[in-house]
Amino acid sequence: MNYILKNENAIFYECGYSCDNAIFLKLGSENFFITDSRYTIEASLSVQNAEVIIDKDLITKANELIEKSKIKVLNFDPKEWSLFHFEKLKRSLEVHFSQKIDFSFHKRAIKTPDEISLLGRACQLGSEAFERLARDFSLNGIDLSEKELNFRAKSILSSMGEYDLSFEPIVAINENSAKPHALPTSKRVQKSDLILVDAGLKYKRYCSDRTRCVEMQDNFHFNIEQTFSSSKIQKIYDSVKKAHDESISKARVGMKAKEIDKIARDVITNDGFGELFIHSTGHGVGLDIHEFPFISQTSEMIIEDGMVFTIEPGIYIENEFGIRIEDCVVMENGKARIL
Amino acid sequence: MNYILKNENAIFYECGYSCDNAIFLKLGSENFFITDSRYTIEASLSVQNAEVIIDKDLITKANELIEKSKIKVLNFDPKEWSLFHFEKLKRSLEVHFSQKIDFSFHKRAIKTPDEISLLGRACQLGSEAFERLARDFSLNGIDLSEKELNFRAKSILSSMGEYDLSFEPIVAINENSAKPHALPTSKRVQKSDLILVDAGLKYKRYCSDRTRCVEMQDNFHFNIEQTFSSSKIQKIYDSVKKAHDESISKARVGMKAKEIDKIARDVITNDGFGELFIHSTGHGVGLDIHEFPFISQTSEMIIEDGMVFTIEPGIYIENEFGIRIEDCVVMENGKARIL
Repeated sequence: MNYILKNENAIFYECGYSCDNAIFLKLGSENFFITDSRYTIEASLSVQNAEVIIDKDLITKANELIEKSKIKVLNFDPKEWSLFHFEKLKRSLEVHFSQKIDFSFHKRAIKTPDEISLLGRACQLGSEAFERLARDFSLNGIDLSEKELNFRAKSILSSMGEYDLSFEPIVAINENSAKPHALPTSKRVQKSDLILVDAGLKYKRYCSDRTRCVEMQDNFHFNIEQTFSSSKIQKIYDSVKKAHDESISKARVGMKAKEIDKIARDVITNDGFGELFIHSTGHGVGLDIHEFPFISQTSEMIIEDGMVFTIEPGIYIENEFGIRIEDCVVMENGKARIL
Repeated sequence: MNYILKNENAIFYECGYSCDNAIFLKLGSENFFITDSRYTIEASLSVQNAEVIIDKDLITKANELIEKSKIKVLNFDPKEWSLFHFEKLKRSLEVHFSQKIDFSFHKRAIKTPDEISLLGRACQLGSEAFERLARDFSLNGIDLSEKELNFRAKSILSSMGEYDLSFEPIVAINENSAKPHALPTSKRVQKSDLILVDAGLKYKRYCSDRTRCVEMQDNFHFNIEQTFSSSKIQKIYDSVKKAHDESISKARVGMKAKEIDKIARDVITNDGFGELFIHSTGHGVGLDIHEFPFISQTSEMIIEDGMVFTIEPGIYIENEFGIRIEDCVVMENGKARIL
């Protein structure tokens, strides 16, 4: 199958290297990695199983290679290409461009043992960083703003810049935790406040993702067992934890992704909070922080061994607080194991 | 003129707010800002001159509004839209979609007085951060790796997370400075090493951008006057500085952008280093870190009062070192003033 890729992670998956200006082409038995002269040295050292081609104008170069190859059909993902670039690519070519939506996501849905070990390492480093974060916040956190906590989280998560982050971390206090995508404010944390932290880091480009909630106090930790002074928060926490635990323990290879979502959702609905669980149960994790399989109410994707995804049920009470608990799991021998 | 926007900065420019999932529509005299329910509160508080519409499926909603408006022509920028989204948008609509490449960049090329004052503030904060960086590096820098220096640069530039950065800063030592887009390595800085820092921060979404080169020593500063132990480096530095100074002092409203590029390039070419000046002289700066006008060898854009752009000539000797000096300027009363 012939194809052309433009997305950075899609390209990395094919040849072990990528950068912010690259095209990957598979034309019959030949693979090409096209980039500009800024990346000549790195590309030559790192690209595997593809010929490195340096050119100022990547798309015109791809155009030439496609024409020369005399192939009839070229597959591509219409999500990877702007209309502008796509029109530039296809002009004058007689090849048929065949749309393959989410082409690379489909290829990458089942991870190799090597990928699982990299994801496991990312999750382990992420988990260790959460513990360092707990020590820092409980020693120094009182009176710091969400913005300052967020900065400390980034410093600690990245081990002072050693690792890239999977995404901008979320550090949200009390009512701000009720927003699933909270942005940090100038609000300052006080003793007994609820803190939600959702963060992850990348190890050799593979992402981790984790969420914990805790009550601000001396020597707190980010273990999954938590106690809260407020009985309302405790009740919600226990419901989210039960949904998290049950969907992990009952997930099986052969299920549809939506069945795993339903396990979590049923627990929360039975506890009377169904309408406050306003997002999906999880998403695949790999080179991208959100990839296949999506664990949503509508996903028909069949779960298979080697898939890696988050389980992250949550309950959100507007203007009060939100609780979310998230771990990454890998499907192994038919079951889910927390990474 | 009717138009539809998808790019975050293009949308912010129209209505003073944006987020990572939004569409802006101008249909006759009506303006619409469409986003999803995660942003209901922020959008309602911040969007100006447009009706806020919350929907799960932004494109289908835009489709409905366009159909209802009965307009005949809708302008859009094909660089803002993936082929996938564009096809979803236009399906079944009878309106003519008219391509306007770089639509928002053209609108934003001349800054308003308010924008110039925000850009001035960003540059001032950026410049102060460079001085703090100089103190930190000269006190604590010896034996730190490029990665560690990069992390410290991010911490200081962002004022510990208070400001977003314009881009990932570049902190490059010796031969790594010869790469215009150097990535940080584990290489450790020693006394007398050459350090290049290219960094900027955002103030209320407006970007600053600055580059300085310095020899690592006690109490160094990031002023533009620098002395180097190596006569070769000094000679290159003096040539780059002359190109920087002359293109700023001779830039005039009414010139083509390529004429400003030529002023800088001629200085360096006359000094015998023309082939080592491997990029353009500058780029516009605003909500985007790279926008109109581009100060390149081919840009025919006419320079006008209110334009803000970088002047950043550079000379790069592979495997040895690179020198670049960069400031942001605004065109005022026909001339360039450093921000």
